[in-house]
Amino acid sequence: MKEKLTVVKVGGAVVEDELQLSQLLSDFSAIEGRKVLVHGGGRKATKMAERLGIETQMVNGRRITDAQMLEVVTMVYGGLVNKNLVARLQANGVNALGLTGADADVIRSHKRPLKNGVDYGFVGDVDYGNGETLSRLIEAGITPVMAPLTHDGQGNVLNTNADTIASETAKALAAHYDVTLIFSFEKKGVLSNPDDDESVIPTITHADFERYKADGTISGGMLPKIENALSAVDAGVTKVIITLATAIDGQHGTTIL
Amino acid sequence: MKEKLTVVKVGGAVVEDELQLSQLLSDFSAIEGRKVLVHGGGRKATKMAERLGIETQMVNGRRITDAQMLEVVTMVYGGLVNKNLVARLQANGVNALGLTGADADVIRSHKRPLKNGVDYGFVGDVDYGNGETLSRLIEAGITPVMAPLTHDGQGNVLNTNADTIASETAKALAAHYDVTLIFSFEKKGVLSNPDDDESVIPTITHADFERYKADGTISGGMLPKIENALSAVDAGVTKVIITLATAIDGQHGTTIL
Repeated sequence: MKEKLTVVKVGGAVVEDELQLSQLLSDFSAIEGRKVLVHGGGRKATKMAERLGIETQMVNGRRITDAQMLEVVTMVYGGLVNKNLVARLQANGVNALGLTGADADVIRSHKRPLKNGVDYGFVGDVDYGNGETLSRLIEAGITPVMAPLTHDGQGNVLNTNADTIASETAKALAAHYDVTLIFSFEKKGVLSNPDDDESVIPTITHADFERYKADGTISGGMLPKIENALSAVDAGVTKVIITLATAIDGQHGTTIL
Repeated sequence: MKEKLTVVKVGGAVVEDELQLSQLLSDFSAIEGRKVLVHGGGRKATKMAERLGIETQMVNGRRITDAQMLEVVTMVYGGLVNKNLVARLQANGVNALGLTGADADVIRSHKRPLKNGVDYGFVGDVDYGNGETLSRLIEAGITPVMAPLTHDGQGNVLNTNADTIASETAKALAAHYDVTLIFSFEKKGVLSNPDDDESVIPTITHADFERYKADGTISGGMLPKIENALSAVDAGVTKVIITLATAIDGQHGTTIL
């Protein structure tokens, strides 16, 4: 039987909010067994870019990463956010180690080609997550803290969506562990009624998803999140949970099977 | 017999100069056996601070690290400089992994107390380097790339001089390896005549140093560098070499025994 491992993804909004962040770090520290934290940081990057007079361009909710923006996200994700999370987890007794995809080659990507005529710039589409290396670090007692950056193996750091980092990490580790992937965000789970924060759908299967998609229960930004989750389950991740950042104990939110 | 390990420290001036940097990375990649790279980045931090409208205050050549400057050095050293070096070494076939002292708790420090009435701010004086953890990573085939940042174990990242990181790392690894520590800089070595770049002193022992100090041959900023080197040798480092950034093959520069 495989050992249990939990991958928790925490978004930029939580990283920005000291009260929620300190709760999340304490809850994450309390998770028993092997674990990985994946963080975003988009809002901090946007603010830093603003302070540097660099304009943030978004297309379909995705950041365009030109050379200047790549510098900003490399600094903010890989340095400011990652190192502060690592230091705080260390203070909680968690032997955290910060990683981008470049570190020990844990996530390799290639620069995204033009998509529908849009040049996303220095954005990396993942080729593979290195489950061997990650599991070797984890077996040495280390808790990886992963920033949303990857590399192309030719010397270039690339910007990669944190949800993607989380699911690729979970998939790469599924060969070695019984993996639960938790996406934490600002709602209690996937809601059947967007106006009712208590209308959490407890579980979603492939069949449920098709039904909810057809009848419009699930729409908009939640669609790619759940597609991402289902693809992780298809790739061997045991379950994916979508839940509130202050409820990552595995007992709350929506479970995708 | 212990395995050989080389620690190379590269300063901020080289990190800034693409031609020198690419030569250094290629030479570093060619070093056989186990190795560690330690980098600075002060000039990049000063420039970034300037762009953000943050004034850099120096006292006796040392940066005062207030809360705003701590953010800048955490971003620039831990993110921008470190991750780019890691990605480039990966492209050279070196399995690099970036570390601050907080990562896997490899270098613990405490905030420097007031010194002669000067508050250096968020600067960390090193308590210990974790040779056990570093050597475990190295034995797993990893080449650590160390940024000049440490942590206090209470959740705070602190700014620490890169020369200090290099010598503390070398000392911590001396119990496990036959360590050569190479400080690369803009001169060919320790010069007997500051006006003659070819007047490199080939070796310096404790006795030589006392003599050179007394007769004024060695003075100024070179004094703490050599004191640092001698203390590394006293702590078990086999030898310390002070040399040009483009001559880190162990055959050039000044050797301190």
